Amino acid sequence: MGTRAGIVVTGTEVLTGRIADRNGPWLADRLLELGIELAHITICGDRPEDIAAALRFQADAGVDVILTTGGLGPTADDMTVAVVAEFSGRELVLDVELEHRIAAILRRLMERYPGADFDAVMAANRKQALVPAGATVLEPVGTAPGVVVAGAPTVVVLPGPPRELQAMWPAALATHTVQQAIAARTQYRQETLRMFGVPESELADTLRLAESRVPGFDRLEITTCLRRGELEIVTRYEPAAEPSYRALTEVLSEHHRRELYSTDGATVDDQVAALLAGRRVATAESCTAGLVAARLTDRPGSSAYVTGGAVVYSNEAKSAVLGVDPALIAEHGAVSEPVAEAMAAGALRRFDADTAVAITGIAGPGGGTDEKPVGTVCFSVQRTDGATRTEMLLLPGGRADIRERSSTVAMHLLRSVLLET
Amino acid sequence: MGTRAGIVVTGTEVLTGRIADRNGPWLADRLLELGIELAHITICGDRPEDIAAALRFQADAGVDVILTTGGLGPTADDMTVAVVAEFSGRELVLDVELEHRIAAILRRLMERYPGADFDAVMAANRKQALVPAGATVLEPVGTAPGVVVAGAPTVVVLPGPPRELQAMWPAALATHTVQQAIAARTQYRQETLRMFGVPESELADTLRLAESRVPGFDRLEITTCLRRGELEIVTRYEPAAEPSYRALTEVLSEHHRRELYSTDGATVDDQVAALLAGRRVATAESCTAGLVAARLTDRPGSSAYVTGGAVVYSNEAKSAVLGVDPALIAEHGAVSEPVAEAMAAGALRRFDADTAVAITGIAGPGGGTDEKPVGTVCFSVQRTDGATRTEMLLLPGGRADIRERSSTVAMHLLRSVLLET
Repeated sequence: MGTRAGIVVTGTEVLTGRIADRNGPWLADRLLELGIELAHITICGDRPEDIAAALRFQADAGVDVILTTGGLGPTADDMTVAVVAEFSGRELVLDVELEHRIAAILRRLMERYPGADFDAVMAANRKQALVPAGATVLEPVGTAPGVVVAGAPTVVVLPGPPRELQAMWPAALATHTVQQAIAARTQYRQETLRMFGVPESELADTLRLAESRVPGFDRLEITTCLRRGELEIVTRYEPAAEPSYRALTEVLSEHHRRELYSTDGATVDDQVAALLAGRRVATAESCTAGLVAARLTDRPGSSAYVTGGAVVYSNEAKSAVLGVDPALIAEHGAVSEPVAEAMAAGALRRFDADTAVAITGIAGPGGGTDEKPVGTVCFSVQRTDGATRTEMLLLPGGRADIRERSSTVAMHLLRSVLLET
Repeated sequence: MGTRAGIVVTGTEVLTGRIADRNGPWLADRLLELGIELAHITICGDRPEDIAAALRFQADAGVDVILTTGGLGPTADDMTVAVVAEFSGRELVLDVELEHRIAAILRRLMERYPGADFDAVMAANRKQALVPAGATVLEPVGTAPGVVVAGAPTVVVLPGPPRELQAMWPAALATHTVQQAIAARTQYRQETLRMFGVPESELADTLRLAESRVPGFDRLEITTCLRRGELEIVTRYEPAAEPSYRALTEVLSEHHRRELYSTDGATVDDQVAALLAGRRVATAESCTAGLVAARLTDRPGSSAYVTGGAVVYSNEAKSAVLGVDPALIAEHGAVSEPVAEAMAAGALRRFDADTAVAITGIAGPGGGTDEKPVGTVCFSVQRTDGATRTEMLLLPGGRADIRERSSTVAMHLLRSVLLET
């Protein structure tokens, strides 16, 4: 029957949309890896009755484990531990040893804030040392400890800051209580295919075809999602269904050979990073204004192949920094293939690179014309050994969409030019 | 008694964390503005029984309106409308007129995909024209129409792509059905204060003090949250409690005069954008590698004051592009205040700017030393008329945290230098 879990995200700041929840999705991914079925994620504010209602809903959904996030802080609106204690029918007791350990952490922390009053801070944090009787304490990563409370369901109380939660998760998972609660889980495999340049409806059509062609198709749990202008096809199956999955990938690659660029889950960012090993890449960005450089340097070790980039928003900057001929801009306009090519060529020279990617476009809302409406973006990728590709596209969406999709298109053009031999 | 609402987010890709939900938080904000109490956001996968359970949970929580997002696409795993129809006890009927309008949209859309098979796409999209009997149709923004189904609770079915959902929301809100369902709402005010450089525990202490000092403190619903390294204090209250709110802000500004930088909800990005009007700003980034340039150009019209920026990841680029003396780097290291100053000065010259901000640091995980551990970041802001500020900080967190916090620190330094007269 397997193991089911639910996630209860707490925090008025999350519920009211002032911060996006990163913990629910992250924990969901961990559960999936473990082969634990996730039933529901609920988000509620810092109101005890709402947190209690969410815990009951998850329990009624028949989950074996509930993971809660947030509400472990020092402020009065942090009350998750108290609500969970009541939900599990346990007393709250002060863990004196834990209180000392929190104090030690805070003393170090306070050094960063010469102004702060240590006693006031300690008072604020004393409540963080109150834990449900018999619960297993998870040592603080920040200042907030987590707790694991055995029961039906077992409740794992985790902190709100993603960095703290992610660092605390292994300890939570390792507890005897959690291991017992998830002992019945089934192992699943999960594999990801990525496509670029296929409309979702056409993929849907191919999947309907696969349904009739692939033996055991119904043993594959397939979800498709459109993200950053790409299609992601994630399939979850029990190991025995592997042949069906292989058959599915064959149908998909048959129908979308050009667009199916990843069958091992690697993102275009992963592939470009691998292709850039041993190279020196530079960026020249106008409308994306640094997004591509930031994306390339997202990952550790990128300094080995990223030499730098120019954000050339103004025409003057295009000429002064990348040596784009003002006459070229005057003749074709700043958003044109010749200017994109000149920007890439300039980036190769300026940053002494062997590969360069240039983006110039109209992100809007202003600046569009009949001839070049908002969403018109020109791309050019060049290698010093000659391989090159230049394209002009019309991208849909608002300013943010256009800027982000442009960075995705740039990554794919970079990929295709790096693949040329 | 007011109006309560619940949000049901659907989509296995959201539940499993492959895409972060942007709709729940966005809708939550809209509800808050309308003075509608949000009880719960639930997220579930594309399983009819789970969607139905979430709808029942919200109904049991006594909400007047349920907003659903996602599951309106053409693929088989898109089933929200069918589940809502059953939940509301209505038949699904084909809206022929709607089907024609969707076909027209798709014909235009297909032009972007020369390869695509129009009939296949139409077949996939026919189900999008099936609506619950008697429901109000919300015209498609993409290809998916939304629906409003009157009842107790009233259900508003919205698409998953944030751009489509946000564009469709005004039409949903304008429907007679929704207006009736939310007629009983109370109007609240919501105001936001922002602080930079205060530990959350110290703010908690100040709030406890305010509790004893501010008459009618309990009529203020205060939530504090730490985001992007800043503290955000959002207070919600009925108009009559305005004097209490004023008193609260006095206590806070008294205790955190230097750190309280915004009392009108404006972000540091808003303030910097306003201060940059009529100026020419340039960026010089190493560890943030374009994040600050991308952040400055986030908003429409930024091309009026952003001239450009340099991403100088390698030492060679620092010298070649910004004219940083290699001897300076050799003497002090690439991550040092002198080099940050030289980068800012170089950006002023190179981009013919009157204001420049430079960031150079160690984002990690590699590259740290005992003397300069991971998280060491140097900032320099300079104006051609002489105003300048340079700082070295040690920032906590992982690579992504350090890069993002660095961009926030850079915005605050920029602000403080722009405020100098």
